[in-house]
Amino acid sequence: MNPEPILSGDRRALARWLTALEAEQPEAQDLLATLYARAGRAHRVGVTGAPGSGKSTLVAALAKAWRARGQTVAVLAVDPSSPFSGGAILGDRVRMQALAGDPGVFIRSMASRGTLGGLAATTADLARALDAAGFDQVVIETVGAGQSEIDVARTAQTTIVIEAPGLGDDVQAIKAGILEIADILVVNKADQPGVEATVRALKSALELESAARVSGEAAPGWSVPVLTTVATAGDGIEIVIDALAAHRIQMQSSPIGQQREIQRLRRELEARLRQRVWQRVEARLAPDTLDLLAAQVHQRVIDLESAVKSVLASTHTHTE
Amino acid sequence: MNPEPILSGDRRALARWLTALEAEQPEAQDLLATLYARAGRAHRVGVTGAPGSGKSTLVAALAKAWRARGQTVAVLAVDPSSPFSGGAILGDRVRMQALAGDPGVFIRSMASRGTLGGLAATTADLARALDAAGFDQVVIETVGAGQSEIDVARTAQTTIVIEAPGLGDDVQAIKAGILEIADILVVNKADQPGVEATVRALKSALELESAARVSGEAAPGWSVPVLTTVATAGDGIEIVIDALAAHRIQMQSSPIGQQREIQRLRRELEARLRQRVWQRVEARLAPDTLDLLAAQVHQRVIDLESAVKSVLASTHTHTE
Repeated sequence: MNPEPILSGDRRALARWLTALEAEQPEAQDLLATLYARAGRAHRVGVTGAPGSGKSTLVAALAKAWRARGQTVAVLAVDPSSPFSGGAILGDRVRMQALAGDPGVFIRSMASRGTLGGLAATTADLARALDAAGFDQVVIETVGAGQSEIDVARTAQTTIVIEAPGLGDDVQAIKAGILEIADILVVNKADQPGVEATVRALKSALELESAARVSGEAAPGWSVPVLTTVATAGDGIEIVIDALAAHRIQMQSSPIGQQREIQRLRRELEARLRQRVWQRVEARLAPDTLDLLAAQVHQRVIDLESAVKSVLASTHTHTE
Repeated sequence: MNPEPILSGDRRALARWLTALEAEQPEAQDLLATLYARAGRAHRVGVTGAPGSGKSTLVAALAKAWRARGQTVAVLAVDPSSPFSGGAILGDRVRMQALAGDPGVFIRSMASRGTLGGLAATTADLARALDAAGFDQVVIETVGAGQSEIDVARTAQTTIVIEAPGLGDDVQAIKAGILEIADILVVNKADQPGVEATVRALKSALELESAARVSGEAAPGWSVPVLTTVATAGDGIEIVIDALAAHRIQMQSSPIGQQREIQRLRRELEARLRQRVWQRVEARLAPDTLDLLAAQVHQRVIDLESAVKSVLASTHTHTE
């Protein structure tokens, strides 16, 4: 693959590269290796929140504000909860369309294909590619708060978690995992009733959580801010942008921040190795091996554990 | 491991077995293989829903109703969104405590340890163990709607998705993936305002979804019911129990149902193989190999793809 068109801003060449990376094509991965030295300049920002929190509108408002500051923006919209349909939610795409005429903004949707542990690795590849392609801000947008979303969010340097008013004081309703990945909390739709109760609930939950935390991931000296926005009107967006920049500086200048980046690369390395190692074994199996074994397990001819062992034994002579 | 105490109802022996299965101890897995022929009698029921939907209360109400019918119940409460804290949400456990005095009910909490693709496999093991141990109903309860929850829900034969009123008519707010795994939809807290709008929104979403579905997982002839309950008062619970039984019969008697079970076993087999194959490679690496490589990638001494290739090359001579 030729890096020139991509580096000179050819969006179609960039889109083709990303598609090839999603398909794990070796040439695309080699190009990423070649361009590796160019990556590391972008700020990778994770944005996650429940459906209805106004996530996409907030991302659009952030993009607009960055553009006003002369920065370029790439958005990776990831929907790990949609393994079947293979497409992002239509409404989100329509909303982002408002930005799509701007050559300084690039938007890409990704959906899980039901790969095991593959989505986070692919997302990280695409984020790195967008970084190498020269974007100043790379936003990784995910829906929800499951393990996949957390894995995806971890590919970001700074993660924003969005809530909408309506939590009330119910700290129980806030899931532990989601607070632990938040570097910045945003209560969007702050023109709706219940904002104060939601801010209060989030602050209490943060206090509980930081008291319980033994070895967390957040940088020491960084206390997670709870900000309010009305993304549709652009209210509060500048403060979010400033908080993002402040967090990045904090992370880059602290040993903990460096350590967090190394841990992230360590996880990514392992996820990628798991995938490759499996592909290598799979390539050696007859195409219908697993289907036939599953049918035998179903008929109770063989149990699952014995089926696993029989496959391992058939590849064993080659591997030890 | 001795199967006798487990089969004769010794709960502590059962708990020890489950703990050993979670730790992937070979003797525990061998016992599961030995008892494999005993499994297959239980109905594995998945229950998932957002925090605040009253999921645990509904599970407790279902358990109570099954007990009244003379059936034994095991509940596996899985929280894939909590990779850090390693424990289930306290409130849920307290609520389930009401049932804990009954020897016909067994409750077990599981939390993700950040394993990649491991949680669904472990959950399936534990569900199968509880089946083999003789429980009539094995409930697999998960929080949320991410990929992990979907993978976990897939270990069930019948999956209930719970919503609370408040969706309004906003079909956009319902995530596609979650509808596609639902065999039964329950709107809980049906004494609160907005029930009818939520039921209507879910029915519209189901219609849209079934129109769009090309090759879905649901059995043909099964139309997903939208039921309403007030779990705290026990209202509507009997109808849910009847719907569960009806779905099970439908699945068992249709070729599609058989096929779905075989596909599930196929996925489980692959997830397990991926895990074992990786463990075999990992055991051959020096303990700090990945840490050192991650630090080198961070320092830009090497790129990630080259790091992957160097590890693969170091295990390559053994494997091909």
